[in-house]
Amino acid sequence: MSDIEQQARACRAAATMVAGLDTAQRGALLRAMAAALESNAGQILAGNARDLAAARAKGIGNAMLDRLMLDPSRLFAMAEAVREVAGLPDPVGQVTRDDVRPNGIRVQKVRVPLGVIAMIYEARPNVTAEAAALCLRAGNGVILRGGSEAIHSNTAIAAALGSALAAHGVPEAAVTVLTDLRREAMLELLQLHELIDLAIPRGGEGLIRFVAEHARVPVIKHYKGVCHLFVDASADVAQAVDLLVDGKCSRPSACNSLETLLVHRDIAGEFLPRAGQALASRGVELRADALSQPLLPGSTSASDEDYAAEFLDLIIAVKVVDDVEAAIAHIRRYTSDHTEVIATRDAANAERFIHALQSAVVMVNTSSRFSDGGQLGLGSEIGISTTRLHAYGPMGLEALTVERFVVRGEGQVRTAKM
Amino acid sequence: MSDIEQQARACRAAATMVAGLDTAQRGALLRAMAAALESNAGQILAGNARDLAAARAKGIGNAMLDRLMLDPSRLFAMAEAVREVAGLPDPVGQVTRDDVRPNGIRVQKVRVPLGVIAMIYEARPNVTAEAAALCLRAGNGVILRGGSEAIHSNTAIAAALGSALAAHGVPEAAVTVLTDLRREAMLELLQLHELIDLAIPRGGEGLIRFVAEHARVPVIKHYKGVCHLFVDASADVAQAVDLLVDGKCSRPSACNSLETLLVHRDIAGEFLPRAGQALASRGVELRADALSQPLLPGSTSASDEDYAAEFLDLIIAVKVVDDVEAAIAHIRRYTSDHTEVIATRDAANAERFIHALQSAVVMVNTSSRFSDGGQLGLGSEIGISTTRLHAYGPMGLEALTVERFVVRGEGQVRTAKM
Repeated sequence: MSDIEQQARACRAAATMVAGLDTAQRGALLRAMAAALESNAGQILAGNARDLAAARAKGIGNAMLDRLMLDPSRLFAMAEAVREVAGLPDPVGQVTRDDVRPNGIRVQKVRVPLGVIAMIYEARPNVTAEAAALCLRAGNGVILRGGSEAIHSNTAIAAALGSALAAHGVPEAAVTVLTDLRREAMLELLQLHELIDLAIPRGGEGLIRFVAEHARVPVIKHYKGVCHLFVDASADVAQAVDLLVDGKCSRPSACNSLETLLVHRDIAGEFLPRAGQALASRGVELRADALSQPLLPGSTSASDEDYAAEFLDLIIAVKVVDDVEAAIAHIRRYTSDHTEVIATRDAANAERFIHALQSAVVMVNTSSRFSDGGQLGLGSEIGISTTRLHAYGPMGLEALTVERFVVRGEGQVRTAKM
Repeated sequence: MSDIEQQARACRAAATMVAGLDTAQRGALLRAMAAALESNAGQILAGNARDLAAARAKGIGNAMLDRLMLDPSRLFAMAEAVREVAGLPDPVGQVTRDDVRPNGIRVQKVRVPLGVIAMIYEARPNVTAEAAALCLRAGNGVILRGGSEAIHSNTAIAAALGSALAAHGVPEAAVTVLTDLRREAMLELLQLHELIDLAIPRGGEGLIRFVAEHARVPVIKHYKGVCHLFVDASADVAQAVDLLVDGKCSRPSACNSLETLLVHRDIAGEFLPRAGQALASRGVELRADALSQPLLPGSTSASDEDYAAEFLDLIIAVKVVDDVEAAIAHIRRYTSDHTEVIATRDAANAERFIHALQSAVVMVNTSSRFSDGGQLGLGSEIGISTTRLHAYGPMGLEALTVERFVVRGEGQVRTAKM
């Protein structure tokens, strides 16, 4: 048996123990994990310093360095996030259906943990602690395969979490941080469909496509977020400008940021000059179609690729459309099934927009930046799904469980007398 | 573009139209489909007669012939099943969460169709109509890839259903019955992850493994059902015998039939002779461990493989265990995650059994044969899942949908002033 398979087997055995803990025990375990992150701050920051030094030596860019960097305040925020997960409502054991059949058998659907989750992610070491907390809160084991850039941070975090697990009588394998980061090891991990119930890749589109392409375990993922804002003829112009600026500028690198602005022709003359000014003053580059370009000083011509692009940057594609149907048709063509927003005061158009589009999150008069597990009330987010299976949209604790059947009877049989 | 891809694209386009119909429209469509099956009975039975003649010429066995065979009464039962699906509660549009966040945005989770379902199945032509009905009821399109033995039955059924679709203004591609049954065509279908949201293989383990092995679309499946009955020391003996006989004998070829009997040592002396007699009188072959063999006249020695086997026949493996923990340990080792039953009058042991086992269906004092969508109140069953993702256990209409987010606000933005 290979090392990877051995680790997966150990995690699976530990997951059975985690599933056996009750809500209070899992809560206490998570609080101990948070405390261990704090009491091991020295080791974790030292590990992180090694990663940062290596990253700088490799000439890694500032954005990446910032994602990788831990300091005391970030570390305590990480511990606090783990404590918050400890305080979230426990999905495990939740009864979602309770029904007595005509023959008297009582049929319940009850949430149970998924089993073992494999997280594949890149350089953010806080994902290590938060994903571990979410998976354990929902009664699962977790295998964490982070990026090589964060290896010393991640192993130090794992050691801290492991000490808390051990103190609670749970095998440390319940949170397994892989140190064999070769691509072949990841490939092997992704084949273990009898040991791993779900893989969640998080990171760049290349990593996610690699995982989706090669996995024999189920994968929940989203490749990208090409989020649209459609400003209807009846929109409140000032409000729509706010939604646009927040959606595009508050964090351009986030997947829930806007990439395309669609504007109803009847409001374009009023809306676009104000919108263009607001965006330009924040350094946003505008790529516009023939109808909107004259209304947007400094804009360039949008290509077809611009409408399909996730810029992850201060760039936006703009197009004037005839009506809500034309907006829907455009979005259907280019959607990544992530998040779409309509700004409107027309209730019928809002409902039409909601029902015609099947994206994971559809919004009316609200910023796309709320398309996030925490903002939508899920507590914390393990990932986002744009595949319509199991979960669709931001995923919280519930997405780490599944409903199964518990049936109680008094000797009922299906074929009365045989 | 290949034929298969073209058909999948057409189905996807049609599925968008089906998703746009409301509950009443989809209900009317299904009732028209049922009526079309009846009014096209002549063509369907003629197609089925061709299939039966070809099957007989190939020397296909009686069990298979019976599965393939349609007659007027089976055909009307098929139409009736479609009508029943038309009458089931509509999962689409169901609001499963409705919550106003502190900032005033209203967050709902609402069920939407999955999109396009690919069903891969073997010789039962009634699956064609029932799967089509279930998929359309839940707002999806469906691609049906049946067995070559049923090709003329299936195309005749598809033609009947297609006429009903066309009469309701829905493209016939919403129910696409593939006629290219080459293995390469199936392989191609299973790669179309941007067009197909879910594949459900139903049939022998070989077919299912082939689909799971080669699919790049998500697959929900179960390989086999190794269902256990554990008779606890406190069981009502007469009741436990009934559960055993019903579970093993009422339909041995069903996946929810019992394959292994575990008996608490303290009750074995009383229970096993009665159980053995009841089974033997129904022609059941007994494969027993060393402790149970003396109590079961005519039994043979069970091997390790017998405890892992899905016999699908009048054969059962028997073992005496020390207590509920030993029963749990045995089941954990051999489970197929399908259905496990405990016969007991001890409430603590019942709860321990339920919580220690993570199978899709866990039952107390009830026949395993109730582990079926219809019996559990799902209305009708599209398949059974033993993977813990999306659905676990018998799958009804709800499993053909997913919850997405609908968010309504009044201009809220995430970053107050930028």
